[in-house]
Amino acid sequence: MDKRFEQQMEFIVEIDKMKSVYRQTILIDESRRETDAEHSWHFAMAAIVFAEYAHSSEVNLKRVVEMALAHDLVEIYAGDTYAYDEQANEDKNERETRAAERLFALLPEDQGARFKALWEEFDKMESPDALYANAIDCLQPLISSYMTKGKMWRKNRATSRRVYERMEKIRRGAPPLYEWVKRVIEESVDKGYLDR
Amino acid sequence: MDKRFEQQMEFIVEIDKMKSVYRQTILIDESRRETDAEHSWHFAMAAIVFAEYAHSSEVNLKRVVEMALAHDLVEIYAGDTYAYDEQANEDKNERETRAAERLFALLPEDQGARFKALWEEFDKMESPDALYANAIDCLQPLISSYMTKGKMWRKNRATSRRVYERMEKIRRGAPPLYEWVKRVIEESVDKGYLDR
Repeated sequence: MDKRFEQQMEFIVEIDKMKSVYRQTILIDESRRETDAEHSWHFAMAAIVFAEYAHSSEVNLKRVVEMALAHDLVEIYAGDTYAYDEQANEDKNERETRAAERLFALLPEDQGARFKALWEEFDKMESPDALYANAIDCLQPLISSYMTKGKMWRKNRATSRRVYERMEKIRRGAPPLYEWVKRVIEESVDKGYLDR
Repeated sequence: MDKRFEQQMEFIVEIDKMKSVYRQTILIDESRRETDAEHSWHFAMAAIVFAEYAHSSEVNLKRVVEMALAHDLVEIYAGDTYAYDEQANEDKNERETRAAERLFALLPEDQGARFKALWEEFDKMESPDALYANAIDCLQPLISSYMTKGKMWRKNRATSRRVYERMEKIRRGAPPLYEWVKRVIEESVDKGYLDR
């Protein structure tokens, strides 16, 4: 086989490691933490099912789904950074930029550049597609946190103030879903799943 | 929130169970078996990266990616059926049809019908999109089996004859990849990863 195919195959083999990057979100059955591969899949499914709540009818769902599948690939080398870990978030950008250079260089140049651009667009949170994608990226773990009665919130000492800050992305990217978000946060505080 | 949103949310919560359906394929690092959610994610990524090898330039990648994400959802209720388990494959269709009725009924009618049709199309293996999707669905575990030196093949007493039969889907749906498939099967037999 030619060099191009070999590069593509090497990338597909390398990203198997997404199944060994564990996040600070647990499965709804509470049996274990979920992996980046599982989160990316669930995020893509939610982006499809909730598409009608996107902030704009111009959102391109094909691109959003590709962002969902690829947005966490850099964590193969950079690791998962918990949303509410302030210290780890300080050098997150630098770590992830280095990881992206390394990972996407495995692919043929055209494909590597395409995935890198998609990841950068997601990370910048400016384009219509990136705004909706970021909303669903926040929604997916919120659902798990709520359904598991805030087990990981309590473990990581999250507060409703920090969760509200993070969920701004949903208010921007999928406004109709924000009503549900507010209800879930308030109920979580009332029930003791989450500190005020 | 209205009934439509509640149904969508219930579906998104229910499909979290895809993270607890374990397949007869192990991670390339051999640490454990992979889940259906992880396989679906990896399949979707491979469908994107290998798109240029599809049997026809008319293949619609957006639909193929949606098939990849949704094709195994029925296994939440029907369980994973190992490709080389002849007995379990006898009532697979019946079990999966019942599972599809139950799972997709959780969604609003329009969305449930859409996912069900997509799953049926994938399963029939007739449309251009389904042919390419089925090829990649077979390719993903072949890569893992080869990279893990046939650990699960040996455990399940697979033979090269059965693997060749199964890989017909790759010959049909992504013909340029079939050269690699043949090389990998022959090498696996030579090295003792797989019985002749």
